[in-house]
Amino acid sequence: MTVVAALQEALGDIIDVTEESLEAARADRSGHRSAGRPLAVVHARTTADVQRTMRIATETRTPVVVRGAGTGLAGAANAGPGEIVLSTARMDGILEIRRDDLIAVVEPGILNADLNARLAEEDVWWAPDPASRDISTVGGNIATGAGGLLCAKYGVVRDAVLGVDIVLADGRLLHLGHRSVKGVTGLDLTSLVIGSEGTLGVVVGATLKLRRLVRGETCTLTALFPSVRAAAAGSAAVTASGVQPAIMELMDATSLASVHRHLGLPAPLLGASQLTIRTDGPAAAAEAESIAQTLQAAGGEVALTRDAAEGERLLAIRRSMHAAMATLGTTLIEDVSVPRSALPEMFDEITRIEARYGLTIPTVAHAGDGNLHPNFIFEGPEVPERVWAAADDLFRAAIRLGGTLTGEHGIGMLKSRWLAEELGDDQWELQRQIVRVFDPLGILNPGKVFDRA
Amino acid sequence: MTVVAALQEALGDIIDVTEESLEAARADRSGHRSAGRPLAVVHARTTADVQRTMRIATETRTPVVVRGAGTGLAGAANAGPGEIVLSTARMDGILEIRRDDLIAVVEPGILNADLNARLAEEDVWWAPDPASRDISTVGGNIATGAGGLLCAKYGVVRDAVLGVDIVLADGRLLHLGHRSVKGVTGLDLTSLVIGSEGTLGVVVGATLKLRRLVRGETCTLTALFPSVRAAAAGSAAVTASGVQPAIMELMDATSLASVHRHLGLPAPLLGASQLTIRTDGPAAAAEAESIAQTLQAAGGEVALTRDAAEGERLLAIRRSMHAAMATLGTTLIEDVSVPRSALPEMFDEITRIEARYGLTIPTVAHAGDGNLHPNFIFEGPEVPERVWAAADDLFRAAIRLGGTLTGEHGIGMLKSRWLAEELGDDQWELQRQIVRVFDPLGILNPGKVFDRA
Ligand SMILES: Cc1cc2nc3c(=O)[nH]c(=O)nc-3n(C[C@H](O)[C@H](O)[C@H](O)COP(=O)(O)OP(=O)(O)OC[C@H]3O[C@@H](n4cnc5c(N)ncnc54)[C@H](O)[C@@H]3O)c2cc1C
Ligand SMILES: Cc1cc2nc3c(=O)[nH]c(=O)nc-3n(C[C@H](O)[C@H](O)[C@H](O)COP(=O)(O)OP(=O)(O)OC[C@H]3O[C@@H](n4cnc5c(N)ncnc54)[C@H](O)[C@@H]3O)c2cc1C
Repeated sequence: MTVVAALQEALGDIIDVTEESLEAARADRSGHRSAGRPLAVVHARTTADVQRTMRIATETRTPVVVRGAGTGLAGAANAGPGEIVLSTARMDGILEIRRDDLIAVVEPGILNADLNARLAEEDVWWAPDPASRDISTVGGNIATGAGGLLCAKYGVVRDAVLGVDIVLADGRLLHLGHRSVKGVTGLDLTSLVIGSEGTLGVVVGATLKLRRLVRGETCTLTALFPSVRAAAAGSAAVTASGVQPAIMELMDATSLASVHRHLGLPAPLLGASQLTIRTDGPAAAAEAESIAQTLQAAGGEVALTRDAAEGERLLAIRRSMHAAMATLGTTLIEDVSVPRSALPEMFDEITRIEARYGLTIPTVAHAGDGNLHPNFIFEGPEVPERVWAAADDLFRAAIRLGGTLTGEHGIGMLKSRWLAEELGDDQWELQRQIVRVFDPLGILNPGKVFDRA
Repeated sequence: MTVVAALQEALGDIIDVTEESLEAARADRSGHRSAGRPLAVVHARTTADVQRTMRIATETRTPVVVRGAGTGLAGAANAGPGEIVLSTARMDGILEIRRDDLIAVVEPGILNADLNARLAEEDVWWAPDPASRDISTVGGNIATGAGGLLCAKYGVVRDAVLGVDIVLADGRLLHLGHRSVKGVTGLDLTSLVIGSEGTLGVVVGATLKLRRLVRGETCTLTALFPSVRAAAAGSAAVTASGVQPAIMELMDATSLASVHRHLGLPAPLLGASQLTIRTDGPAAAAEAESIAQTLQAAGGEVALTRDAAEGERLLAIRRSMHAAMATLGTTLIEDVSVPRSALPEMFDEITRIEARYGLTIPTVAHAGDGNLHPNFIFEGPEVPERVWAAADDLFRAAIRLGGTLTGEHGIGMLKSRWLAEELGDDQWELQRQIVRVFDPLGILNPGKVFDRA
């Protein structure tokens, strides 16, 4: 019996072999796709479905690619020939919301925004807010260790998960973590699963740490600077002043000009880079005033609004970056992260790399936490060698500055060749051995993350 | 050549075999000691010292117990016959403080309070504040995943470490994590080391995440309640109101009476339990007012002060708990943690256990995060079987309520027999295999944490 026949016998009509579904599973949003179609997509509805699938995969030694909404930017959910796609997108229930304990227990397939819409009714929220929150799953957010705009103030996924239930490669179910906010019983396997990109097990449930909705007004500022270095220095000055903005985003000149063009807004001054900053909570207005002064002193041209709609309009410019880039060609969105004080230097490195490789690299940054997204743009589906060479240069610069090659998007298939460079060979090998403890046969997302080829 | 001779040859006068040092290394602050004296204490001064020690230990298959200040409460640093004690207490340098990046790079032996005294000069602090902060090392805090009074608002060790350098059992040095606030490169081994109690490697350095000193006044409240259940309900009401105190501590009637006696204060009303709460930051006064109202509505008798010295005096009562208990006999300090809403029920369980085993179990709780410290008190050095039976009952109750058997003190040797109960056999075995990846020969802290005997 073929693997697909075994799946169909065990799981019936949740096995999907339509051309459309198989094609869709070849790619995420990174602009990259696998070499060909996978065997089948399993639309799991229950933990038992996941367990049955993994047992068949183990018996038949068939590779499994777990998939949420497929919005990843590292190719981690791309499935190819001979692989089973295990989708957790339809396991989308909210099992429990506890306002008193500030926890929610959810299935992995629920979309981040759908969860937060439901939580808002209870006056609470789950803080991780990737720009993809309307279209990405909580399971995918956990598996990638996602960040977002608000995370400098309110934390990333890693700060917001108390426990996960995972199904191992052989089909066994483990409950990791607990419902209490504190706990140090044994090793922290919950943290290990966060960001593991489908290599350790299938997340089938999660206990999330919630926050109360933030009360008070929100204020939004923009500050224009004559150069990206000046804007980066402005953001460093805000951090140094001790005020913690909820959002602090930086757009370099090319990014800003592209988005203005895309949205039909008047062109910004040549070379102008912009900071977009939001404050919230009880001290929002005072903090915004103080930030405005800091930015003016740093040479910025500041606009400040306490109007919510106007604030959203200002932030929409930053939020349109992805769409604006997509109009220019195929994008390879990079994701290096450096200590905050190294932001200006990292922008110098990007300028150097642009010159060296003859490229334009529009860059936005979550300036509040030192995470940059340089966009490499090219024609056609394949990343040209010159772009990879420039990316290589970029990664090494980030590591040299004390940073990392990925702040929030992960390694997937696109960055696995640089992983050992950052971890060192000893740590790389140790990490791979840990993966083998969870998945001795190596059937979970092979060829991703820990693939050196 | 004996192991000690080999150590002496390689490391000279940092090898200590004085009776006094060997005796001291047999015990931490748990009230328990090992069966006999260890072989030697190595007072490492550098990473190279640690590496040399571990190489000799590996060659000779000699067990190593890493030790900070020995203030642990789980027996995790207790060393016995045939074991090398590797002390990191003298590696106590601060290598770097960066106000702009809000990070510090330190050696493991620095005392928490010494570090914070130095950081305060730069207007920053490291938030983890175990009640032992004056006497415990940052390396020990990391290895136990320590919590403290302020952690409901400002986080535990797990939230405050960006990277650790560890020496593996075979002497190799690994740099885990990074200096950037964000990063998802590979598995999060930094989190795995936090709370690993000396079983994965020797922490020889750490990159810590700092906060700016909190500005504004602090307000302190106490509220007396007629019963512990009423006090627990009061704390739940504060949490439910959405206000986040910096500190919220609960003392049951026996604890309160014992501390009053110990400090020579007038006896509290029979049965009276107390909440001690602190607010800080820009909204401290408004938050304190709102908390006072909540507690009054919950039946509490509230006192509020905005005076710092008076506030310290009120908190000193809670801080004297450990000393007061020590005057009563030998204490086994337990450390269960439950979801916040389960606090009243957990106190009911303690009342039930007191009645069933004929014990008095004075209990304090970090009520803001559901972490309880029930104190079992007995005569002499050995924990009586009846006390273990009661503790067993306590652990099972906490797990039943969705909690864990240790919120911040760890497993060590005292709780290893309950570890599998909480983790389940499959997860226990998986965790042990992960330990073996780091330490294939099992020479790091054998007989602790993952020992089932
Ligand atoms: C417009 C846009 C904006 C974005 N903005 C951000 C941002 O601000 N911050 C950010 O961090 N990311 C961002 N992303 C990237 C992406 O949305 C996130 O990585 C997201 O967390 C992926 O979720 P997903 O459900 O789409 O997962 P997928 O893409 O389906 O999968 C991603 C990885 O998770 C694994 N996985 C998924 N579900 C499970 C499961 N149940 N169990 C185990 N493994 C699983 C997959 O195997 C794969 O390795 C953005 C993407 C787009 C297209
Ligand atoms: C009065 C009192 C109050 C306390 N209050 C609290 C509290 O509020 N919160 C709390 O969490 N704890 C508390 N504790 C417990 C204890 O102080 C903490 O666990 C502390 O973190 C231990 O630090 P240490 O340096 O004394 O470590 P040790 O006791 O020496 O060691 C503890 C564990 O860490 C390991 N270890 C130590 N250094 C290293 C290293 N460099 N590398 C690898 N492993 C290492 C040891 O092997 C051992 O497993 C308290 C203790 C006392 C006596």
